[in-house]
Amino acid sequence: MKELDHLFFPKSVVLVGASPSEEKLGGIALRNLLGLKGNIYPVNPRYDEIMGVRCYPSVADVPGMVDLSVIMRPAVEVPAILRQHAGKARFVLIVSAGFAEVGAADLQQEIIRIGREGKLRLVGPNCLGIFNPWHRLDTMFLPHSCLKRPKRGNVAVVSQSGAVMICLLDAIRMANTGISKVVNYGNAVDLEAPEVYEYLAGDEATEVVVSYLESVGDGRRFLEAARFLSERKPLLILKAGKGAGGRAAAFSHTGRLAGDYQVFRSLMKQFGLWEVAGFDDLLDAAKAVSYQRPAPGNRVCIVTNGGGSGVLAADECARRGLELGELPEVVRNGLRSVFPSFYTVANPIDLTGQVRIEDYREALFAASDAYDGFLVIALTGVAGVTLGLAEYLREFREKVGKPVVVHIAQGGVAPRLIRQVERAGIPVYRSPERAVRGLAALLKNRGGSHG
Amino acid sequence: MKELDHLFFPKSVVLVGASPSEEKLGGIALRNLLGLKGNIYPVNPRYDEIMGVRCYPSVADVPGMVDLSVIMRPAVEVPAILRQHAGKARFVLIVSAGFAEVGAADLQQEIIRIGREGKLRLVGPNCLGIFNPWHRLDTMFLPHSCLKRPKRGNVAVVSQSGAVMICLLDAIRMANTGISKVVNYGNAVDLEAPEVYEYLAGDEATEVVVSYLESVGDGRRFLEAARFLSERKPLLILKAGKGAGGRAAAFSHTGRLAGDYQVFRSLMKQFGLWEVAGFDDLLDAAKAVSYQRPAPGNRVCIVTNGGGSGVLAADECARRGLELGELPEVVRNGLRSVFPSFYTVANPIDLTGQVRIEDYREALFAASDAYDGFLVIALTGVAGVTLGLAEYLREFREKVGKPVVVHIAQGGVAPRLIRQVERAGIPVYRSPERAVRGLAALLKNRGGSHG
Repeated sequence: MKELDHLFFPKSVVLVGASPSEEKLGGIALRNLLGLKGNIYPVNPRYDEIMGVRCYPSVADVPGMVDLSVIMRPAVEVPAILRQHAGKARFVLIVSAGFAEVGAADLQQEIIRIGREGKLRLVGPNCLGIFNPWHRLDTMFLPHSCLKRPKRGNVAVVSQSGAVMICLLDAIRMANTGISKVVNYGNAVDLEAPEVYEYLAGDEATEVVVSYLESVGDGRRFLEAARFLSERKPLLILKAGKGAGGRAAAFSHTGRLAGDYQVFRSLMKQFGLWEVAGFDDLLDAAKAVSYQRPAPGNRVCIVTNGGGSGVLAADECARRGLELGELPEVVRNGLRSVFPSFYTVANPIDLTGQVRIEDYREALFAASDAYDGFLVIALTGVAGVTLGLAEYLREFREKVGKPVVVHIAQGGVAPRLIRQVERAGIPVYRSPERAVRGLAALLKNRGGSHG
Repeated sequence: MKELDHLFFPKSVVLVGASPSEEKLGGIALRNLLGLKGNIYPVNPRYDEIMGVRCYPSVADVPGMVDLSVIMRPAVEVPAILRQHAGKARFVLIVSAGFAEVGAADLQQEIIRIGREGKLRLVGPNCLGIFNPWHRLDTMFLPHSCLKRPKRGNVAVVSQSGAVMICLLDAIRMANTGISKVVNYGNAVDLEAPEVYEYLAGDEATEVVVSYLESVGDGRRFLEAARFLSERKPLLILKAGKGAGGRAAAFSHTGRLAGDYQVFRSLMKQFGLWEVAGFDDLLDAAKAVSYQRPAPGNRVCIVTNGGGSGVLAADECARRGLELGELPEVVRNGLRSVFPSFYTVANPIDLTGQVRIEDYREALFAASDAYDGFLVIALTGVAGVTLGLAEYLREFREKVGKPVVVHIAQGGVAPRLIRQVERAGIPVYRSPERAVRGLAALLKNRGGSHG
């Protein structure tokens, strides 16, 4: 059993600062923790029982040793509470804010010292902690009515920021994909990204790792752990706090220096790591790699029923270093013989507003050997785009096995079509540019040799 | 009365190729045209009456002169049909595809010649035409079940591409803003962007113009008309067909050369015109300027309840040339005296996950004099963000009058909160980066001196 198994699959969890009121953070957190496959021990000297569970006056009164203790009390109380944990808990997650990020560096040093003396592994402070839907572990003080949890899936999130983690969880849910494990480690006095990366490299439930960072403690350790992980599965890293304003913001956020971004960037490149440019990029790429495995090559075929959308996608391909390349002559001749004269048989293949769904099938299979990835644009504003398209796309993806992404705009059958296409394992995007970014993530922006 | 009034406010419209079946394009178009404030004359030799309206064998049989005739017949039939229009119509909109965009340059030359001889103003071919909700004019062959029409509003769309126009209409509807006029002119054998720009400059219903181009006919004419318009109202131009692949795609789309993009770009700059980088940028900027008027300055204050989201926004500000700037000392001291110690009183102002909506109000008014624009980030994953925030934002916007944009992620009260904030005239975005792009459009990316 690995050390971090105790953090992600705790058999027993203490909550210091538990409250009977779901108006309070300590009540929301307890409600969410009660789903755990394991024992919960609320701690609050004012109650004997909360939400039907026996409550303890202090952590010292909890029977035996627990895997994880969660502290939700004001920062000034944390040192004293932490001292009681020696010999009682393996991991202590300090949710409380009010440490180095607001200038209280001494207080933060004190908890580091207490943690070392008590041989405690610390997570946080100033964080939301852990979400592992496979173990029904959820330390977040966010009601389900405010943040719907994503389903179980293959994406792990490692985030220094709780806010960004929340936004990622929402985006992952909206993208119809799911979560393997989530950790938000805030000020990072002990647990940091590298240790989590190494753990996730061997975690079977995790196929993709999405990571948001503002600062990196030990640079070499970080880079080596990131490389170790990225040699095994796609690892997408977003580094924020890039300019002077962003760096200052990052410092007051987690009390750690964001460092020089240009240095970070060039090291990422040297180590063959995959850095995404921004938050929206991160979402688009993460969605793609959670649906399909990256593949070699960079030649893209675009099949569209809207000329302008095809042109926009072609422009974005150029920006992303993807090649369109002429449609081979044999493909052109084949398609010309079956398509109406007003269809454009080139790349993009433009099936126009008079498209029928069979035409997509025809075009895709004809071009299947000549390209590495496929972008299908289906504008549902015209009557010819029907739900049957999802089945054709599934068939194409299954038979050809190369990356396929789809852009569908709003309107008509769009909501149902998107659902069915995504059920077929093909990610759908709301703009031509975002779809190209997804495809680029599957074709050439991987870590390692694709850099 | 201006010439283009006949196109946008026709008293009478002919539809050549009308069909009784709403399975056919000529039936869908007729159904949509029947809403017109004016007379509709379907033309089809096989029927005496369609959808309760008298039908004519040919345009020659229609009584009197009409303002607009719409041709929806195969390309090869268009020359003969067009000849019958001499003296019968002011504007002829040729919806049909199958001209220069598929290599049939001769056929296109022929309709140009017939148009000139018959003194006909031509729109198209290969286009969707006109949508003017203020006159209930809708020439698009798209069923309402496939493309919901946006409401009446202040945004005009001038698009060479029909597909992009459809996507823009959808995006404008989703952004809770509305349309003044839309024109999609396709292969542009006669009517082109410059003439429409000049018309829209004097159009009271239009406050913002969004324009998608692939090619520009007469460059100088285009630039001068664009400058004329942009001196009067915000004009956002997206030029597609940028790289070699995109240029080729643009050519097979509308049969016109996209030209050298670098030359276009430098001319746009010389003329002080506002070019947006891509489709998503266009949507974000268009939404912002449809809600609020651009204002001078580039100093931004960020008020957030999520530290990481604030850092991401700060990074995007740097990329967009917006300055954060330190919070003035007097503001800092004022806020420190009222806020809990774990709030970050800097720029971004971080109200943390324990925020109450009153804190947003406090922070915004305290910073109101020191900044030119405001970005509010409200993550609804925490319980403290409630619907009342919309009212505070409305009050701030009304009293201070400077640009304000908001980023709200999914979850909890988000859908209702977004609706209420947008009703208060403040645009909401789904990511911190997109919100910054919207704010940048309001602060410094205007045409004219802001270039």
